[in-house]
Amino acid sequence: MNRRMVLNTVGHILLAEAALLILPAIVSVIYGEDCLWHFLFTIGVALLLGIILKFASRPDSKVIYAKEGFVIVSYAWVLMSAIGALPFFLSGEIPNYIDAFFETVSGFTTTGASILTNVEAMSHGLLFWRSFTHWIGGMGVIVFVMAIIPNIADRSMNIMKAEVPGPIVGKLVPKARETARILYLIYVGMTVIMALMLICGGMPVFDSVVHTFGTAGTGGFGIKADSITSYSPYCQWVITVFMLLFALNFNLYYLMLMKKFKSVFKSTELWFFLGLVGLSIGIITFNVYPMYSGFEETIRTSSFQVATIISTTGYATTDFNLWPGLSKSILLLLMIVGGCAGSTAGGLKNARVVMLIKTVYRELKKLLHPRSVRAVNMEAKRVDEQTLSGVTSYFAIYIMCIITIFILLSIEPFGIETNLSATLACFNNIGPGLGVVGPTGSYADYSMFSKILLSIAMLLGRLEIFPLILGLNPLAWKKR
Amino acid sequence: MNRRMVLNTVGHILLAEAALLILPAIVSVIYGEDCLWHFLFTIGVALLLGIILKFASRPDSKVIYAKEGFVIVSYAWVLMSAIGALPFFLSGEIPNYIDAFFETVSGFTTTGASILTNVEAMSHGLLFWRSFTHWIGGMGVIVFVMAIIPNIADRSMNIMKAEVPGPIVGKLVPKARETARILYLIYVGMTVIMALMLICGGMPVFDSVVHTFGTAGTGGFGIKADSITSYSPYCQWVITVFMLLFALNFNLYYLMLMKKFKSVFKSTELWFFLGLVGLSIGIITFNVYPMYSGFEETIRTSSFQVATIISTTGYATTDFNLWPGLSKSILLLLMIVGGCAGSTAGGLKNARVVMLIKTVYRELKKLLHPRSVRAVNMEAKRVDEQTLSGVTSYFAIYIMCIITIFILLSIEPFGIETNLSATLACFNNIGPGLGVVGPTGSYADYSMFSKILLSIAMLLGRLEIFPLILGLNPLAWKKR
Repeated sequence: MNRRMVLNTVGHILLAEAALLILPAIVSVIYGEDCLWHFLFTIGVALLLGIILKFASRPDSKVIYAKEGFVIVSYAWVLMSAIGALPFFLSGEIPNYIDAFFETVSGFTTTGASILTNVEAMSHGLLFWRSFTHWIGGMGVIVFVMAIIPNIADRSMNIMKAEVPGPIVGKLVPKARETARILYLIYVGMTVIMALMLICGGMPVFDSVVHTFGTAGTGGFGIKADSITSYSPYCQWVITVFMLLFALNFNLYYLMLMKKFKSVFKSTELWFFLGLVGLSIGIITFNVYPMYSGFEETIRTSSFQVATIISTTGYATTDFNLWPGLSKSILLLLMIVGGCAGSTAGGLKNARVVMLIKTVYRELKKLLHPRSVRAVNMEAKRVDEQTLSGVTSYFAIYIMCIITIFILLSIEPFGIETNLSATLACFNNIGPGLGVVGPTGSYADYSMFSKILLSIAMLLGRLEIFPLILGLNPLAWKKR
Repeated sequence: MNRRMVLNTVGHILLAEAALLILPAIVSVIYGEDCLWHFLFTIGVALLLGIILKFASRPDSKVIYAKEGFVIVSYAWVLMSAIGALPFFLSGEIPNYIDAFFETVSGFTTTGASILTNVEAMSHGLLFWRSFTHWIGGMGVIVFVMAIIPNIADRSMNIMKAEVPGPIVGKLVPKARETARILYLIYVGMTVIMALMLICGGMPVFDSVVHTFGTAGTGGFGIKADSITSYSPYCQWVITVFMLLFALNFNLYYLMLMKKFKSVFKSTELWFFLGLVGLSIGIITFNVYPMYSGFEETIRTSSFQVATIISTTGYATTDFNLWPGLSKSILLLLMIVGGCAGSTAGGLKNARVVMLIKTVYRELKKLLHPRSVRAVNMEAKRVDEQTLSGVTSYFAIYIMCIITIFILLSIEPFGIETNLSATLACFNNIGPGLGVVGPTGSYADYSMFSKILLSIAMLLGRLEIFPLILGLNPLAWKKR
């Protein structure tokens, strides 16, 4: 265990957080809000801790193995959230620190689950910071640090592997740092385009920016009690399309920039994702047709809700709690599947679902013809057996986590529908669930124990379980 | 595809069913009931069909490959249920044939889910047949046929593999037929002991016999509206213990008969199962203590309910629908785990759960030390990689089946708690679930579509998915 390198890198990440906190501080200045001082204090805390960690632990070796990657990612995410929660708590707008921590974890993990019961009363600076955490967490803060700070990148893909979602993290270009830069360039570009499209559609500039942050990170924190419902149909369609775009594998955008359209067209995961989206919209439109007036409203509402759930964003334009059972069950299924690997979305990821289906299909064939050896292909390439067994093991631990969290959560008196959907909505980084935690409800009534439990669930989901379990394990600190 | 051998074996199985139907016919004679004639008619149908299949298809080769095994098991179970439903339907006691089919599938698959709303009004002959199907289905009708009819046994383990639950089907002795005989001897022995213990405890003889059938097969069809509630605490304890005994791997009993106590003591699956039972009873006793009067009643009630759910039997001595959320969630978890491999119980099976946990643990280790190669051990033996990948694939298709059935079932207006627990209770062969299908409810209100869907779920669960999917696939009939 290269402890110094771990502490040094975590220090870098806290310094980056201090820098990112300047933006909401500026917003507070513009709106003349008191929370400016709480942002400045928080920047001070992040700076101080960051500098101590960075300079007190100059590494003699820059090697980062898988283990160091997990430890860095785990501690960085927990610390970032603990510090990021300070402005909410200090301003008194979220009087309980555990609540503020829950809200910040929900932000960074791009979940969007909220304990706020009156979001419209919050100050602009804090609303901006709340949505900005989605944007930061979406592409990953460590990927961000790798993209801008030279001395920790280039050494190893191991940090990036721990933070980027999906079963296979491929480098776009030979150097990890270049890959991180390209990803962030695409991310920033798409963010700018979306914000401009919303502003052109007549949405106020502040609203456009925070909703773009929430969409880009597939987070879902809104600034209105009714989420997106009161915005124009045009804005709803723009958000629908971009939620789906941000749920796609970013490698596809890189391939498009490189004009490799054929490879994009051949992507198994892309077609599976689009098929699932289309099928779900079709069934739900048919199922909820009597509840809305006219075809445009029905298909807009069902498309928005399918996009918001499968992309694990969590905005809403209707209370899908009131939908018939079939539509609600389809939403529960989409919660589990989630977005594509290498996107900002949560969930199991379409690539894993495709590989699971192919593995099961192969197992069926093997039972009939025991001596045959068949390979599983994805994206026109053969998937090696180690990746496949990684995917099936991941699925097993994924289901085990859901069951464990659900059982611990069931000490709450809210019934199976609420508790199960809260588990799925937090673990898969969606946000709203069904019942009490539905689109019109909040997580405010859960006990402190459950809020901490669900914070852990959100982190487990965002970091894809293994890094957090291994990274927070005290044994990981042992020198080899 | 050796079609003749398949048809010939299915013919044998129908002849066996005709023979087994003589028992309930005798019961009808004793009680002087009209259903005697309906049993005799059904025996005639089974005989006729069995003779036609047996003699019209004399096989030129007796080879049974894996594929033939799946096809035999699938068709045999569907046909057996279709014929076994006739007495219920012909007598008019279950006026709808789909309902009668559901009830019979529920019997043979040892599920115990019922569409009856007034079980106490049924005639003795039909109640006997209903519980007897549990006993037949528990150890498996094909294993039974193999044990008694010489010319189809000894050739191959492939039929037995398709019917006996669990990831590894080991032969106790080199010959498959001897193994089948030993299993049935243990089964009959334990059945007799249990019935005698109930009779000695003051339970009427008829009640003792049908409840023993229901316990031995881990089925759960009762003959009282309140299931086991009104019987004495002694009888409840006897049933609790035997439900757990019948949920253990029968190989353990064989090892005990061979005086290999050391091997029994070392069984990973046994300890995992006992640990899970003990832990669940402990938590639930603590959780429901305020609802009952005194320690004996609380621990008896919680032990009974834990045993009935983990063994997938489905009797009840209390309405666990009224229990607090934590206890209900633990029951949902136990529904998924189920009994041990090689028992009469359903569910995922403890052996698979242990292997899944070990595989996940190995995957965690592998992430830290990528070059290390570790074996997974079970029952003091190394598990080969093919079995492990079979287990993880099985888990994937198991969860996929649950999700698919749940989504199709959610067109019913009963809410998530009822529909999800109905899916788990049928697919894992338990019987009662929560909500509308709880211990005091029934499946009567489900539509015909859902009853057929749940019948398929019960068969999929009992035959462990793969054999049914492969066996009923029309392509399986193709000549190679």
